[in-house]
Amino acid sequence: MTHRSRATVVSGEPTTMVSLLEAEFDRRWPDGVTGLDAVHRYAMIPTGKLLRPSLVVHAALAVGGDLSAVLPAAAGIEGAHVGSLMHDDIIDHDGERRGRKAVHTAFGPAQAIIAGNALYFAWFAALTECTRRGVPADRVERAKAVQAEAGSAICRGAFEELTMRGDLDRSVDDYLTMARGKTAALFEAACRIGSILGGGADHATDLLGTFGDHLGIAFQIRDDLLPYHPATAPPMGKPADSDLRNHCPTLPVLLAHQRAGAAGRAALRHTLFDEADPQTALHRMRALLEETGALDAARAMADHHAQLARHAVSQLPATAHTRALAHLTSPPAKAAPLPSA
Amino acid sequence: MTHRSRATVVSGEPTTMVSLLEAEFDRRWPDGVTGLDAVHRYAMIPTGKLLRPSLVVHAALAVGGDLSAVLPAAAGIEGAHVGSLMHDDIIDHDGERRGRKAVHTAFGPAQAIIAGNALYFAWFAALTECTRRGVPADRVERAKAVQAEAGSAICRGAFEELTMRGDLDRSVDDYLTMARGKTAALFEAACRIGSILGGGADHATDLLGTFGDHLGIAFQIRDDLLPYHPATAPPMGKPADSDLRNHCPTLPVLLAHQRAGAAGRAALRHTLFDEADPQTALHRMRALLEETGALDAARAMADHHAQLARHAVSQLPATAHTRALAHLTSPPAKAAPLPSA
Repeated sequence: MTHRSRATVVSGEPTTMVSLLEAEFDRRWPDGVTGLDAVHRYAMIPTGKLLRPSLVVHAALAVGGDLSAVLPAAAGIEGAHVGSLMHDDIIDHDGERRGRKAVHTAFGPAQAIIAGNALYFAWFAALTECTRRGVPADRVERAKAVQAEAGSAICRGAFEELTMRGDLDRSVDDYLTMARGKTAALFEAACRIGSILGGGADHATDLLGTFGDHLGIAFQIRDDLLPYHPATAPPMGKPADSDLRNHCPTLPVLLAHQRAGAAGRAALRHTLFDEADPQTALHRMRALLEETGALDAARAMADHHAQLARHAVSQLPATAHTRALAHLTSPPAKAAPLPSA
Repeated sequence: MTHRSRATVVSGEPTTMVSLLEAEFDRRWPDGVTGLDAVHRYAMIPTGKLLRPSLVVHAALAVGGDLSAVLPAAAGIEGAHVGSLMHDDIIDHDGERRGRKAVHTAFGPAQAIIAGNALYFAWFAALTECTRRGVPADRVERAKAVQAEAGSAICRGAFEELTMRGDLDRSVDDYLTMARGKTAALFEAACRIGSILGGGADHATDLLGTFGDHLGIAFQIRDDLLPYHPATAPPMGKPADSDLRNHCPTLPVLLAHQRAGAAGRAALRHTLFDEADPQTALHRMRALLEETGALDAARAMADHHAQLARHAVSQLPATAHTRALAHLTSPPAKAAPLPSA
């Protein structure tokens, strides 16, 4: 598995960290297992981009923590992320994930609900392992409190997203509240957990948390933009038509609705709610988003939050790890600016 | 809500404890809320029997702990239990729970998946509150470790139950392994968490854990027997035909299959897999279970585990709280022995 998963890891990560993370994943979710373990192996390996584990590790090392002591926390948070994707794919009726069958398609929805739950609990169990690697119990307890709050925030964001479906009149503030819960809460938690376990002072933990929050919002906006990017990216996440099919008013769609006149709004509604063919809907929506300048506006908002993230981390002493964190705020190659119209 | 919920509380509980638990529930899941909070309010209140919270409280007080310090843990574990029921009802296609619409029926399956997850995370957040009520952080950290392990065990048990569906050749040992995970793990965790938070010595925590494990198995077997009890009990849990409809080989069904001859086994299979009318299936199954003596045998196994539970708790110094725990091992009135034939 190492060949494929390594190729998908966030660019710029030192090979040592990636190798250690992959070894940790292989130890936790070994090959040749059955039942629930086989579902987890399928979902966890090959790995995704390992973005959240990278945040845990870099945050811990940025404050002087120990790499091996936080590896369980890094693996655990990726498990929680993958668990949430399993449930998302059921909720969104997405049959594929990362270019192959989603867990509920491959194993059944009941199995995917249970396997996702198990990964949430394993996230907390992983933190306990950090005590056995020398992290003091009070730090672990504080990190678990951050995890519990982040988990609650993710659920609130996911629930809020359901209430937003089909509603083009929701504000950008509503969107940001939803994205902050659904996506940024786990980015923020990754940074806070790494800092707390690594022994960071409260001030450093707060700065790293602010970094993670803004990085998460930038990430979610860029994720919203992915279906409208003309480049053919390797299949990494959910199907490109998922948001449209689920009538999700993503940020570019909300911005286009704000900017459009009556005719443009009617066209947006028709495309989001009435167009039966997913490819036609995607093509038409892309044109509408370009016409209204919504793609550029959304991209500017993502860049703004990336800038705020860099500002937060720039207040910490500069090390290879704060630089690695700042590097993560750059848009990935596949989300590069679109050619103008 | 107090009138109805009080009536459903485990008999023999002191009114003070019940009132405090209900106040804690009302504070956490208040009336007049919207969105995710409204789903939680609907699911949590009126309360069920409050069996797991009672275990937390009595275990804590049995080792000399403080009632108000463990109330958040008691409320949190009931939340986790109700969260697991929300997911169970989706998995089992049970549209009703406690005599009214199940959460997925009333609010939608996506909402029920998310609301269940949120209650799991709230369980861990509740433990953190215990530190603010004077419980030392290292105890809270140990209690969270127990929670994480119990959560994983519940998922393993629930997954195992899926693999057992439709398989009448599974052994009683397989059944006990499944029941130990799916049901007894949370009973055991409730007792261990109460003891740990209350400052119990390891020996006391282990005895209380053993008590909870056996009580949980007895409880699950008695739950299996409920659909075959002639008395009309108030609607408390899942629909009576749920196990049959889902082709679940519960303990009495497995015992009947072991005891039956070829004709009896064929009749069991037909009733479990082919009978379209739920009431006819329930009626026929009851007759088959009585003929083979499986009901008596299952009841004897439940009593055996109840006896083991009482033995464990009898090794602790006798107090009102160990007596209250021992009292919980008696079969509830509605699960009294069936009239012979």
